[in-house]
Amino acid sequence: MSDDILQRLMAVLASRKGADPDSSYVAGLYRQGLDSILKKIGEESAETIIAAKSGDPQQIVAETADLWFHCLVLLAHQDLDARQVLDELEQRFGRSGVEEKAAREQAK
Amino acid sequence: MSDDILQRLMAVLASRKGADPDSSYVAGLYRQGLDSILKKIGEESAETIIAAKSGDPQQIVAETADLWFHCLVLLAHQDLDARQVLDELEQRFGRSGVEEKAAREQAK
Amino acid sequence: MSDDILQRLMAVLASRKGADPDSSYVAGLYRQGLDSILKKIGEESAETIIAAKSGDPQQIVAETADLWFHCLVLLAHQDLDARQVLDELEQRFGRSGVEEKAAREQAK
Amino acid sequence: MSDDILQRLMAVLASRKGADPDSSYVAGLYRQGLDSILKKIGEESAETIIAAKSGDPQQIVAETADLWFHCLVLLAHQDLDARQVLDELEQRFGRSGVEEKAAREQAK
Repeated sequence: MSDDILQRLMAVLASRKGADPDSSYVAGLYRQGLDSILKKIGEESAETIIAAKSGDPQQIVAETADLWFHCLVLLAHQDLDARQVLDELEQRFGRSGVEEKAAREQAK
Repeated sequence: MSDDILQRLMAVLASRKGADPDSSYVAGLYRQGLDSILKKIGEESAETIIAAKSGDPQQIVAETADLWFHCLVLLAHQDLDARQVLDELEQRFGRSGVEEKAAREQAK
Repeated sequence: MSDDILQRLMAVLASRKGADPDSSYVAGLYRQGLDSILKKIGEESAETIIAAKSGDPQQIVAETADLWFHCLVLLAHQDLDARQVLDELEQRFGRSGVEEKAAREQAK
Repeated sequence: MSDDILQRLMAVLASRKGADPDSSYVAGLYRQGLDSILKKIGEESAETIIAAKSGDPQQIVAETADLWFHCLVLLAHQDLDARQVLDELEQRFGRSGVEEKAAREQAK
């Protein structure tokens, strides 16, 4: 798998930051501002849940992609990077991390 | 970046599927079933939104990681793979894809 | 307060059930089906959260109204009634109920 | 229907505002602060969506009640009142309001 797609997408998203709001979907979202990006995250997470309950595998993949995409837009908007999220996943949920998370949850 | 972390996490998540529910956080989630995984996705997306509105970069990264992690758990539970989500992102939101998405939105 | 507004709204929503999808917003939502109504609930709950974090009282009231409205549409679509929700609130969260809920949570 | 339950609940919720955080579920939520209340709204809206997709009427009623309850907690926490939400519903979604909303949506 060529999963550096997340990095390539981050580069595209960064390049849209000064662009004419009418020139692309993402430039339009940036222009509308943080709240608009967050509304999309809320919307796409609901659609992921609905797709999963409907049990359609292709729909689950498509809605998860939409959800992650708008998370990437949020990261770009806040001058953050997907790499930081992947690093966090590595630290917290790597092989041993999954157990560590379990411990953390039980301690709550 | 070593971003094959998603693939490594998928392998860990797949390996938990037959495990004792008490042995790990993820095995416990599988045991509780689909609805429990989806509740976590709803919860973590709300927490991502809240973190973004609070403006704390580390919190945004941490909550996005939590959200993606539970999406990976969903994918594993449904015998799907992160690779499919990345492929979908590639197709729909690659350099030209971002414009295609814009067109698709405007046509709605 | 004339808070039978919920009952009057339920009556309006019920009356829209056979209507031409082009005749009203609600008739259009019914036609699109359950998933469309649920997407709106996901969207409006995100907007309520965003409004609360923004701290604008009028926006909080407006988004909460939008959220409740789409819950009423869901109830009508499923042949349920707001009265049932109010009865549930009465039973579970009446004066003593608030403590009962606390006990229930602690027992989890 | 005695739907002034919303008003009675608001009075109970207001009375909990200075209370010992250990004395009730709601006093605990106030103490944890706005973000905790908003997380519950995100969680309960996801549970409402899941219940609706599962098609269990009693579950839909119970989760909608949970969602509304935490909206009431939010309103109380922000010194707002359910009456304002009902007034907003009256104005925007009264008999003619449903059509007005339709018009507003189409104009978007």
